[in-house]
Amino acid sequence: MKYDLVVIGSGPGGYTAAIKASQLGMKTAIVECAEIGGVCLNRGCISTKTLLKYAQVFDTMTHCYDYGICAGDMYLDAEKIVGRSRAVTATMRKGIDFLLKKNKIEVIHGFGTITSPNTVAVSGEEQREISASHIIIATGARPKDNPSFPIDEQNVWSYKKGLFPEYILKTVLIAGSGATGVELAMFYKGLNAEVTIVETLPAIVPREEPEISEQLRRSLQKAGIRVLTNSRINSVKVDDYCFAEVSTPQGSETIKCDQVLSVTGVVANIENIGLETVGVEVENGKIKTDPYYRTNVPGIYAIGDVIDTPALAHVASAEAITCVEKIAGLEPDALDYGVIPTCIYTTPEIASVGLSEKAAKEAGYSLRIGKFPFTASGKAAAMGNKDGFVKLIFDQKTDKLLGSHLIGPNVTEVISELALVQKMGITGKQLMKTVHPHPTISEAIVEAAAAAHNEAIHL
Amino acid sequence: MKYDLVVIGSGPGGYTAAIKASQLGMKTAIVECAEIGGVCLNRGCISTKTLLKYAQVFDTMTHCYDYGICAGDMYLDAEKIVGRSRAVTATMRKGIDFLLKKNKIEVIHGFGTITSPNTVAVSGEEQREISASHIIIATGARPKDNPSFPIDEQNVWSYKKGLFPEYILKTVLIAGSGATGVELAMFYKGLNAEVTIVETLPAIVPREEPEISEQLRRSLQKAGIRVLTNSRINSVKVDDYCFAEVSTPQGSETIKCDQVLSVTGVVANIENIGLETVGVEVENGKIKTDPYYRTNVPGIYAIGDVIDTPALAHVASAEAITCVEKIAGLEPDALDYGVIPTCIYTTPEIASVGLSEKAAKEAGYSLRIGKFPFTASGKAAAMGNKDGFVKLIFDQKTDKLLGSHLIGPNVTEVISELALVQKMGITGKQLMKTVHPHPTISEAIVEAAAAAHNEAIHL
Repeated sequence: MKYDLVVIGSGPGGYTAAIKASQLGMKTAIVECAEIGGVCLNRGCISTKTLLKYAQVFDTMTHCYDYGICAGDMYLDAEKIVGRSRAVTATMRKGIDFLLKKNKIEVIHGFGTITSPNTVAVSGEEQREISASHIIIATGARPKDNPSFPIDEQNVWSYKKGLFPEYILKTVLIAGSGATGVELAMFYKGLNAEVTIVETLPAIVPREEPEISEQLRRSLQKAGIRVLTNSRINSVKVDDYCFAEVSTPQGSETIKCDQVLSVTGVVANIENIGLETVGVEVENGKIKTDPYYRTNVPGIYAIGDVIDTPALAHVASAEAITCVEKIAGLEPDALDYGVIPTCIYTTPEIASVGLSEKAAKEAGYSLRIGKFPFTASGKAAAMGNKDGFVKLIFDQKTDKLLGSHLIGPNVTEVISELALVQKMGITGKQLMKTVHPHPTISEAIVEAAAAAHNEAIHL
Repeated sequence: MKYDLVVIGSGPGGYTAAIKASQLGMKTAIVECAEIGGVCLNRGCISTKTLLKYAQVFDTMTHCYDYGICAGDMYLDAEKIVGRSRAVTATMRKGIDFLLKKNKIEVIHGFGTITSPNTVAVSGEEQREISASHIIIATGARPKDNPSFPIDEQNVWSYKKGLFPEYILKTVLIAGSGATGVELAMFYKGLNAEVTIVETLPAIVPREEPEISEQLRRSLQKAGIRVLTNSRINSVKVDDYCFAEVSTPQGSETIKCDQVLSVTGVVANIENIGLETVGVEVENGKIKTDPYYRTNVPGIYAIGDVIDTPALAHVASAEAITCVEKIAGLEPDALDYGVIPTCIYTTPEIASVGLSEKAAKEAGYSLRIGKFPFTASGKAAAMGNKDGFVKLIFDQKTDKLLGSHLIGPNVTEVISELALVQKMGITGKQLMKTVHPHPTISEAIVEAAAAAHNEAIHL
């Protein structure tokens, strides 16, 4: 039997592509060598958010007297904490299973290798060769390793192990301060561990605005997390404990810990999937595509973490839809990578979209910048969570939004409106004239837009 | 000394009007007979949200083992619970004080009465007559009373007393199931009280879509709150306890409780402020204005709860800005009352904007309705809060949004984007093509829009 489409990989890119294809009438199969749902569902977004919810509960309980509640001693149940995360991902995985079935997508368990522009050989659990008019590669990425302290999942864990600790760690050293690094730091702090973050660059969450990095650093330190920037782990020696030798601007230091977590990035899964056999072009470890995700080999496409676009679940899903709509002969607009929101689920949360101030200046814009601090927000005060601010960057000439950078409570929900404002070319004045409900965090974006025009009421 | 503008009342309508006027160069005074900030800040929005945060903490702690935490017995400290709410409002009030000072607005403490189209007499704490070119009435509203169980603030409390209980109530009966009624029900449930809500209409939160009322009823009942609809309190007799005689569809019942809370609405504060003296027109207990808040008397304006528009803080603020911009000779658009979001901060939260399904049908539209349940949301699952759904109503012909009705976690933040979509005439397809971050609650609105086009991925 020949398929219209075979998708290799069932993460948020792969399963979205398969479902969209099925909706458009294509006969579709999906090949998965691990669990349905990919990293995002099983060892990524959903797992971390579940664990962070736990950490928020722990933090709330630690501070419950602030709210008027006295409580006795707490006892943490590692099995239950991790068990809830497993249960949530299992439920979501069943949901995806159901959707694939409902959409009549054949799920083939095994490792897929492209053997010709129209055939995929599956090995492992199932062994067969399938042919298809179109093949989408959505094989994702895996943890990046560091030669000076290689991941062994015993003493040096990747996020794979870090998300499922089997005991309550007392001390943990985290290498890397991207989203995963700082989110795991919050989680382990919520297990009452002593947490140290080591970042080689001068700022944590280095892709964010400098003042956001600075605010998060203050918030993490307030929560009792140690933050070492301009620092590097040179080696990890193992005895009863791990002993990491760390270079810091103050000199070398040996840090004793239960585990080292290495979360310094990901590398694309491009090996052994037949790229060389059929001649798919690769550059810097990623598959090359055009704006509709077509590789140089007709009929073969690539989306998600295997291509050189932001390694984010929602980017993979959006690419999947665009790619499949194009295959089906529709005329979708190419994705605008200038308007991709990113979120970090620490406390306070971080959310950004569009240009940084630096990039906007370098692009030659005259800027009109509006800032609003959450200390002036009634909702933030009521929540007891006033750290952070909204920073909006407008083009002075057109009053259109160029970039939004938020740190504070619930900003991961608020960022979507700003993505829409930027994408649709809505002006700051138009945003200001849209009534936002009181009391909410979203009011702060109206005030930031007003601040850019020197019209904020609460500043 | 003559002012350009005198504002009577310093709630979110009044203080916003004063600040805006000052920004536009007008010499401004504000007259307040109670606390700066009005009901919203001192006995309304901010107080309830602070108490509800407490209730969420209590609820979280009650269910902490779900997250893997065992804790000992809890003890509630009423003074501390209410104290935190007072502290938050005190801080916010100081903030408004600061803003008024910074904007060089004279604050006159006393009761303002209009004595001519250009003069306001202040009595009470300060006694004086002030003259102004323009007078804005922003005197707000007060609790509505019911003759069959009059508010005495002893046994039958209004929200004024209900927000500051001096002891831990064991049983409370709440008359009225609007936003304040159901929010106070959640708060008192969070004090571990037995809570009964009595609503005369067939559904609670009667302004919401029927399925939202139904979902909230299920959620309240799951939380242990008793809900009586089509029911009425006929009398309250007081002995050691209150004994309320309640008519229900099942017959008459006497409910014993510590307190009765009467929150069945508000009435405008239009008495003794000189409306008759200067001949300001009143209709059905509210001041009549044109779309720029001009009363029939030149130079006298009215905004907020004293006029016949939704009695919401954000409406009052928006009216204030429009009114003052018009006075200053700018050309603001009149406010579009079709796009006013409303929020209820129960668990799950409720948020709506635009037309109901019924109203949209009656207006003659062909509808395209998309629904997405939070059971299919990864973020909701991670939060442990999957009750609820998103319902979006589009015009089939234009694909423009006519109404949005949400119940679920964080929907009070998500509604702003939908207000913007509706106000700017953005289509469902355009909303679908805007990348929303994963995992968030805001993704659900994209899925609901996609569902309206039979293109949802996760359904």
